[in-house]
Order: sequence, then structure tokens, then C-alpha cells
Amino acid sequence: MNLPTWDLDPKFDFCEEHRVDPDKKVSLKDTATEMEGPFRGKAHGHAFTAKAVAEIQSLQYRTFVEGQQSLVIVLQALDAGGKDGLIRKVLGQMNPQGCRTFPFKAPSSEELDHDFLWRIHAAAPAAGKVSIFNRSHYEDVLAVRVEKLAPKSIWKERYELINDFEALLAHRSTRVLKFYLHISPAEQLQRFKKRLDDPSKHWKLNAGDYATRDQWEEYREAYEDVFEKCNSKQAPWYIIPADKKWYRDASVAAIVRKTFQDMDPQLPAVDVDIDRIRKLYERAESSD
Amino acid sequence: MNLPTWDLDPKFDFCEEHRVDPDKKVSLKDTATEMEGPFRGKAHGHAFTAKAVAEIQSLQYRTFVEGQQSLVIVLQALDAGGKDGLIRKVLGQMNPQGCRTFPFKAPSSEELDHDFLWRIHAAAPAAGKVSIFNRSHYEDVLAVRVEKLAPKSIWKERYELINDFEALLAHRSTRVLKFYLHISPAEQLQRFKKRLDDPSKHWKLNAGDYATRDQWEEYREAYEDVFEKCNSKQAPWYIIPADKKWYRDASVAAIVRKTFQDMDPQLPAVDVDIDRIRKLYERAESSD
Repeated sequence: MNLPTWDLDPKFDFCEEHRVDPDKKVSLKDTATEMEGPFRGKAHGHAFTAKAVAEIQSLQYRTFVEGQQSLVIVLQALDAGGKDGLIRKVLGQMNPQGCRTFPFKAPSSEELDHDFLWRIHAAAPAAGKVSIFNRSHYEDVLAVRVEKLAPKSIWKERYELINDFEALLAHRSTRVLKFYLHISPAEQLQRFKKRLDDPSKHWKLNAGDYATRDQWEEYREAYEDVFEKCNSKQAPWYIIPADKKWYRDASVAAIVRKTFQDMDPQLPAVDVDIDRIRKLYERAESSD
Repeated sequence: MNLPTWDLDPKFDFCEEHRVDPDKKVSLKDTATEMEGPFRGKAHGHAFTAKAVAEIQSLQYRTFVEGQQSLVIVLQALDAGGKDGLIRKVLGQMNPQGCRTFPFKAPSSEELDHDFLWRIHAAAPAAGKVSIFNRSHYEDVLAVRVEKLAPKSIWKERYELINDFEALLAHRSTRVLKFYLHISPAEQLQRFKKRLDDPSKHWKLNAGDYATRDQWEEYREAYEDVFEKCNSKQAPWYIIPADKKWYRDASVAAIVRKTFQDMDPQLPAVDVDIDRIRKLYERAESSD
């Protein structure tokens, strides 16, 4: 199924542009946090996103009805990276009957009494469904490493365990799309400052925001290791230039749409006798 | 908080119009399946719904941030009554990070090994959140009764148990809104026929649809008993005239909005020193 791209440069391939190359070591410092891609500015990007979201809704419907394949969408970012906005504007537009969002916060004491993938596995989508992970098992090799919540001997074993887990999902026809929303330190600071100016956002503030800024380098290194060690064909990483919110939304929508197109969900064959039902209805109608 | 009603007759109160009066026995036969309320037709209704949904989104955000109160929205209807459309167009527009939809199908064998409210209780919303029940515990006194899946001695005890359960939810600041989407037999037949004409809807067809039409009277009676026995102030029933989809969407949006307004969620007080953070940021900016 090939869908129109609304007069975008047909040679621009969002997946190829942003997918992490498994054969190269990523340098986040040298990866753009801002771009316009094939768009003529913000309005063009918004128009594209609206159309891509409509197609995603239709493809999600087919996937749900087909009931064979599943999709996990992992979102990772530093604070103020835009995960919530992306969910509100793009991913949360999927029909909630077939799509659920899981915000993974610091684990509860019950969760800590299990292996780190226990709560993640419980959130895996059933056949036909989509799970959105707002943060994920990757925090167990990111925040856990940078904040020193576990010793290196523990977290260094997790990369392989994560790959094994994602292979298990693939084995049951579940694709995993992993997005890192990449913003610059300057953009993050602007977003923090905007929260100060908007009283309805003050609840989001905490003194720790500033502290994590000091750990930027350590997080960068931890992310670069993730991109290198956990980036399989069935579960690829995409680094999204996210300083411009409209480009973030448009490019993620494009990649999700393309993934659904590749899944190519089919409406199941009908096992009822349409003509017989039609006759029953016609008879009912004449007697109503 | 009193919000504008976009030049609707201010005397028209959707809640009062559609709420089941606890002191009167409902006759579904004598309850309208079609009306236009205060609207000048479909376009006016759609415009109202769009604005009401935007306000619901904003009130849901405040409820989520407040983190004190919860909301359960129960949807019941006969087949083709429009639950899925209502979720897609109105209720599913809430932010999925604070709102989850539960489609309750025929219980699994594990669920059947527990009391009938076990799986429902597990779906109760946490503080600040919303749960949408697509079908609900009411099927245990509706389908179970009409299809004779349990003897009367069992299901007749459930009304009181349901009331007790809903009182428990109210005790933890959870409101329960219950909607019955009321369509006429003729409208149901039209919707079944439309499915025949649309191959992408054929998977929804099953020979049983026609059979339930024969049980219309029995379902009507079972619903009327529910409205009489399980209709408390904290967990009221609303009967929505649902032949016109736009009126269904507009009136449910109005009632959900009004409920959130009554909940009157408050943004929590901030416990950080805004000025101190502002200074930290300004310093960071000048050194970036």
C-alpha cells in the first residue's frame, strides 16, 4: 500500500533519515536537535501531521480488527524533551480501545521485588493492540546508571537481557519502535523557563531539574551506549530532532505510519453469509 | 467555574434533561431515542461538541494534576448503540496518560473464578484518573439475565452488591457516570444494514445480531430494573437519545463537562522556590 505524501520530496525517507545506523557509533553531540526536513515551515509540518495521524488511525483500526500483530512505541528523552506533548498531539490520537499508554515512573516496592523487565512485560500489547511506553526499561540502563541506583555489575548485564526480551516480543509479531527525542541544552532551558512563567505548569517544577542539567554529559554517554548495544532490526532506535515541536510530531507520525504500512494489516475474511443476513434484515424491516 | 454555552438556550440543562429520576419508574418505550435539544441541527451540535471536548481536556488535565478525584464513565447500549463511536469521537479525546478504556467482554475463565466485581474493581481509576467502561458490571444483570447465564437467585442479589461497590468508589472521591445509549429498533436495523454495505465492517457481523433483536423486550425490562435499582446520587444513570449520533456526542460531552466542573479540580500549591529556580536558570543561560 503506497500512500500519497502531500507534495513532500519523495526522496526524503524519515525512517532512513532518523534511524540509528547499527554499524556506526552515535555521537549525540554531532546529531542535529533541529531540522525542517522536507517541509516548508511549521504550517506545512502541521498539515502533514494531521494527515499522517488520520492514516495512522485507519491503519490502527485495521491492525485491531486483524488481531495478529502488535506494536510497542518506546519514548525516551531528557526532562522537557516533549514526550507528553507528542503523546497528546500524535500518539494519543489512536483509538484508546486498541492503544494504551504506560507512564513508567520510579518502580514501586512490589516492582522492585521482581526483575526489571517484569513490569514492562506486563505492559506488552495483546495481538492487534498498541502500547506506548512513556519512559521504559531503558531507564534501567540510563537513570539507574547515571544516578548510581545500581552498581555497574548489575546494569551492564541488562543490555543483553533487553535484547533477549525484545526478541521475544518480535517472536510474537510485536514490533518495537524506539524514539529518543533529542533537544539541545539551550532549548531545555527555554522550556524550563516557560514553566516558570505559566502558573498552571508550576506543579511540574522541581529543584532536581536543574541538577540533571549537570549530568547532561553522563546521560549523553549512557544514551550512546544504549544506541550501540540495543538496536536490532526488529526494534530500531530513531533519534528525533525535537527542538521544533512541529518537526518532532511530523517525523514521529511519518515513522509510525510507515511502520503500520509495513505491517500491512488485513481485514479478516468474513465467515457469515452476508446474503442470508441481508434477507433477514429486509424481512425485519418490512415488519417493523 | 461557569463556562459559556455558545448561545445555547441557557435554560436547557443536559444533566437534568437526561438523568433518570430516582423517584419514577422508567419506561424505555416512552423515552425518546431522538431529539435535537437546544441545537439548530447537526452542524451546531458538532460545533458545540468540539468546544465541550476542548474544555473536557483542560478539566481532565487539572484533575490529573490535582491527583485527588477520579471518574468512571460506564457505557451501556444494545448492539450498534454507538459506544465505539462515542469513545472515538468524544471520550477517547481525553489524554491517554490519565484516561484508560476498558472493553469488558465475556469474562475469561480466570475472571469467572472470582466474584463478578473482581475484574471491575481492578479497573477502578487511581486518584486523578478516568476509567471508561465499554460495557461493565451491569452486563451481569443484563446479558446474564436475558441470556440466562445465571439463575435469578444469583443475579437478583447483584443490584445491592453493585450499589455497595459504587458507594465504595464514592468513598474514595470517585464519581460514576452511567450512560445508556438509547436507539430505536428501526435505527438499529439501519446500522446493521450499513455494515452489510461496507466490507470493512463485515468483521462486525454475526448471525447473533439478529437473534438479540428478538430479545429486545427482555433487554428493555432488564434495563428498566437497573435504572430503578442502581441509580444513586453519586452514580446516576443518564439515558441518551442516540439515534442521531451528533446529539449523542453533544449531550454526553455536555454531561461529562458539567461533571468535571462540579468536581472543580484545583492545581496544587507549589512547594518550590520559583525565584530561586529562576535565578539558577538565568545563570545557566548566561554560561551556556
